[in-house]
Amino acid sequence: MGSDDKIVDVNFESLLRIFTVPEAPDSTLGNIEQKLSQNLNEFLREHIVAEEKPLSEIEKDFLNSAIPETPTFVSEHTQHLLDTVVSHSVHTSAPSFIGHMTSALPYFLMPLSKIMIALNQNLVKIETSKAFTPLERQVLGMLHRLIYQQGDDFYQHWMHSAEHSLGAFCSGGTIANITALWVARNNALKADGDFQGVGKEGLYHAMMHYGYKGMAVLVSERGHYSLKKAADILGIGQQNLIAVKTDSQNRICPIALEETICHLKIQNIKPFAIIGVAGTTETGSIDPLDKIADIAEREECHFHVDAAWGGATLMSNNHRYLLKGIERADSVTIDAHKQMYIPMGAGMVLFKNPSAMTSIEHHAEYILRKGSKDLGAHTLEGSRSGMAMLVYSSMHIISRPGYELLIDQSIEKAKFFANLIEQQQDFELISKPELCILTYRYVPLKTKKALAIASAKEKEELHQLLNELTKFIQKKQRENGRSFVSRTRLTPEKWGRMETNVFRVVLANPLTDKGILHSVIEEQRKIAKTSPIVLPKIETLTSTILQL
Amino acid sequence: MGSDDKIVDVNFESLLRIFTVPEAPDSTLGNIEQKLSQNLNEFLREHIVAEEKPLSEIEKDFLNSAIPETPTFVSEHTQHLLDTVVSHSVHTSAPSFIGHMTSALPYFLMPLSKIMIALNQNLVKIETSKAFTPLERQVLGMLHRLIYQQGDDFYQHWMHSAEHSLGAFCSGGTIANITALWVARNNALKADGDFQGVGKEGLYHAMMHYGYKGMAVLVSERGHYSLKKAADILGIGQQNLIAVKTDSQNRICPIALEETICHLKIQNIKPFAIIGVAGTTETGSIDPLDKIADIAEREECHFHVDAAWGGATLMSNNHRYLLKGIERADSVTIDAHKQMYIPMGAGMVLFKNPSAMTSIEHHAEYILRKGSKDLGAHTLEGSRSGMAMLVYSSMHIISRPGYELLIDQSIEKAKFFANLIEQQQDFELISKPELCILTYRYVPLKTKKALAIASAKEKEELHQLLNELTKFIQKKQRENGRSFVSRTRLTPEKWGRMETNVFRVVLANPLTDKGILHSVIEEQRKIAKTSPIVLPKIETLTSTILQL
Repeated sequence: MGSDDKIVDVNFESLLRIFTVPEAPDSTLGNIEQKLSQNLNEFLREHIVAEEKPLSEIEKDFLNSAIPETPTFVSEHTQHLLDTVVSHSVHTSAPSFIGHMTSALPYFLMPLSKIMIALNQNLVKIETSKAFTPLERQVLGMLHRLIYQQGDDFYQHWMHSAEHSLGAFCSGGTIANITALWVARNNALKADGDFQGVGKEGLYHAMMHYGYKGMAVLVSERGHYSLKKAADILGIGQQNLIAVKTDSQNRICPIALEETICHLKIQNIKPFAIIGVAGTTETGSIDPLDKIADIAEREECHFHVDAAWGGATLMSNNHRYLLKGIERADSVTIDAHKQMYIPMGAGMVLFKNPSAMTSIEHHAEYILRKGSKDLGAHTLEGSRSGMAMLVYSSMHIISRPGYELLIDQSIEKAKFFANLIEQQQDFELISKPELCILTYRYVPLKTKKALAIASAKEKEELHQLLNELTKFIQKKQRENGRSFVSRTRLTPEKWGRMETNVFRVVLANPLTDKGILHSVIEEQRKIAKTSPIVLPKIETLTSTILQL
Repeated sequence: MGSDDKIVDVNFESLLRIFTVPEAPDSTLGNIEQKLSQNLNEFLREHIVAEEKPLSEIEKDFLNSAIPETPTFVSEHTQHLLDTVVSHSVHTSAPSFIGHMTSALPYFLMPLSKIMIALNQNLVKIETSKAFTPLERQVLGMLHRLIYQQGDDFYQHWMHSAEHSLGAFCSGGTIANITALWVARNNALKADGDFQGVGKEGLYHAMMHYGYKGMAVLVSERGHYSLKKAADILGIGQQNLIAVKTDSQNRICPIALEETICHLKIQNIKPFAIIGVAGTTETGSIDPLDKIADIAEREECHFHVDAAWGGATLMSNNHRYLLKGIERADSVTIDAHKQMYIPMGAGMVLFKNPSAMTSIEHHAEYILRKGSKDLGAHTLEGSRSGMAMLVYSSMHIISRPGYELLIDQSIEKAKFFANLIEQQQDFELISKPELCILTYRYVPLKTKKALAIASAKEKEELHQLLNELTKFIQKKQRENGRSFVSRTRLTPEKWGRMETNVFRVVLANPLTDKGILHSVIEEQRKIAKTSPIVLPKIETLTSTILQL
């Protein structure tokens, strides 16, 4: 073992050593790194999703709540990590892992991430981030321009302005959405006469001053669950996050939206923000943003677009039109760790107006002094890593046309898969893909026929059983570990808004090919037939209905 | 150039290639990585803080707001990063960078970080994090035990319980503090009769129901600025974050705390949380936690301890006593990216009661279903990276006694530096170190004498000038780039609470030796003497006062 591998005895000299950068490239740590890289590459090349082992078994490796009293060799610990952690983690990059938005990464990000980790910059302030500060401002500028398409003059003026901010880099879409609604709330309840604004005086005084009985945020019933957290934490209350009806394509109904606003105003509840979803988490649907913008404008509401998932579509000149109206939003959330293929932890919120974030600006004596360009004056978070660098690099290495191709092929692949499902007699497409997300379920052919003629009561009963079957198939497939689709519950118009369990597929990984898609449904069909209890029940009820 | 280096033409085959893990270890990307590592190691070995270049100059490299229309070679872009980003970033790991809490990292974290990046797990749910979920729960358990010292039974029962949570892993201390106060607010305004709780109904209804005129959080005037953000976002209002007087050692005055609570209650404002600071950001002072615990208990307030910086002291059996009383806190914030030497982005909040977080629990249809062990049900953030793994690894490789040594030597070094400053005739120690933070300033010897006999007006005048001088020295030293101390503004009792600019030093880097500390004050003394305007003014005024 080399001298940099272990704190052999816990003494200060050994500790100093672990903070010392090795001189020789063939140091012990260098060798460990090489071994580790090879092992990780093997893992990443494997095309299975997860080695099945029950969680309760895995937990046995993580039971000790005491911090170790003796140090471990780095080499020994690395092996321990490979055995207990790596081998039991999920291959989110496997081409058959098509159940969630977490997908493969471009391989060049592995070496480049080293820069981020090694430099350990803290972007809250320039004193600990120097070049990373203008870099992050540029990345925010790029995303702002992608959405709002202002001219060079605009960005020259605002991008690096100390007193302004085009947005905030966040750990993820949840913080981005909360930030947007925080800004919206504070602007809606701003200082006025004697009242110093909600930020200073709090919500109770704000309501008293403005004479409202409540503050409401409106979003379609397909809105992301993070918005509930936002309504809770902001003091608005979850019940004032109003879920507006969607149409058969899971898009918000503008008429229902207008009616809801009307209804709120009668109760003296102030609808201060309307959220359009550009890519719902469950179905990938895009709200009619232009129509929402009209309503928001008329009602003088903040218009926020949650494009955490779908925002990257703007990179494609071929599909940009799907998000028409987004350029009218007051704020937009985009997660680079979703369709921009950046490692976890790269959310962003952009504001049309460079002065919007003034309502949440804050300062401190030892950093974030007025007039400084410290990014921390406009972020909910404090200390933050230099994650923006990886967005910057991917923008340069992949470039916009590269992203366009990635987006386009994902959408085409989703269309292909939707067609494939529609061709199967024993599958049912539940939501067509607008982007690269779709939902479907398995329904035996005869049961389809039975559903067509069943009574309301029988229909409901069959539906319940199919829900159980969907759950059974999805769980079993996950346990088999060859592929993974996720599961959610929708209320399709076609089925009279009955709660319907569905498979949910996200086709973001460029390495997912048509063969894999074929085998995913093949496996699901096979699993369905092994269902020991539910399938027989379905078959019996089907026969009864069809009078076989 | 190898085939994995560039998307030569933007076509789908080239794009597939960048998502493909190279087979050969000597691939182009492999070579790029090696070159990069060497360059980073050189950077990390350099013992300067920053190459001075004005920000306006650096910004010139980050002006383009358009996303590139053509792809760049990975090798070319890497060189670009080395030239424009790495060379102009801050050496936060330099032993003479003693101005902020961001410090050096143990080198073994470089290879181990690869695991985190490459696996790209998402800890919001088990389906995208598998073994990382019990791992994170174990890390939270270890920290919980470090603070609350419960027995094995306790952790066996709660650590992996689906319905409970010992805390939350966060992007940083700010989110941790906000989470603690969110939980406290929701527990203080919980469901009661017809009222469904503040989370559901919002603050306005909550206040109406409970009949309060306001909700207050109390913390010493040295509390972290993130608490202001928390009061703002939670709807409490910044003015209801009440700053309580501190004593001459920058610790909260318990009597003043009690008086403030009394005063609030008379106004029908509910003091729902008291915060003790265990390591103030500016002076490293620790509040009398036991006394605060007594008061919080009596007043039935949530007792939160912000130990973002100082919490790691609990690892040292020799200094643990300094935080006596922390085990009585309802919640505690600890940042592993501070004194636990983990890369940026590893905050944690721990709750004494495994059921405390129920008040902010949330679910969704596609993940976080009831009964699942998904970590996301109890976090403010949604998607999150596997950062907990690096804490886990450091706990094992360094071990508790290793951390103890690191903490102990930091504190000893701070004491040494404080003594050194007191030995200088022309420096003044402003705050003694309790942990490894101290503050001081430069005051010419004669001016010290003048201050002792000056009139109130002269004293104030001199003080103003010294403030300017401190600012001048700190800026100049930063620009020189050899070392870095930060600057803040305190109101020392000794100087009648006059606002006093001070140098602030954080001695966390184990590689910072006594020689460096000598040279830091040597350089400051030299810089002071080059002050073209302020020093002469100070000297003139000094002479007048001393009647020379």
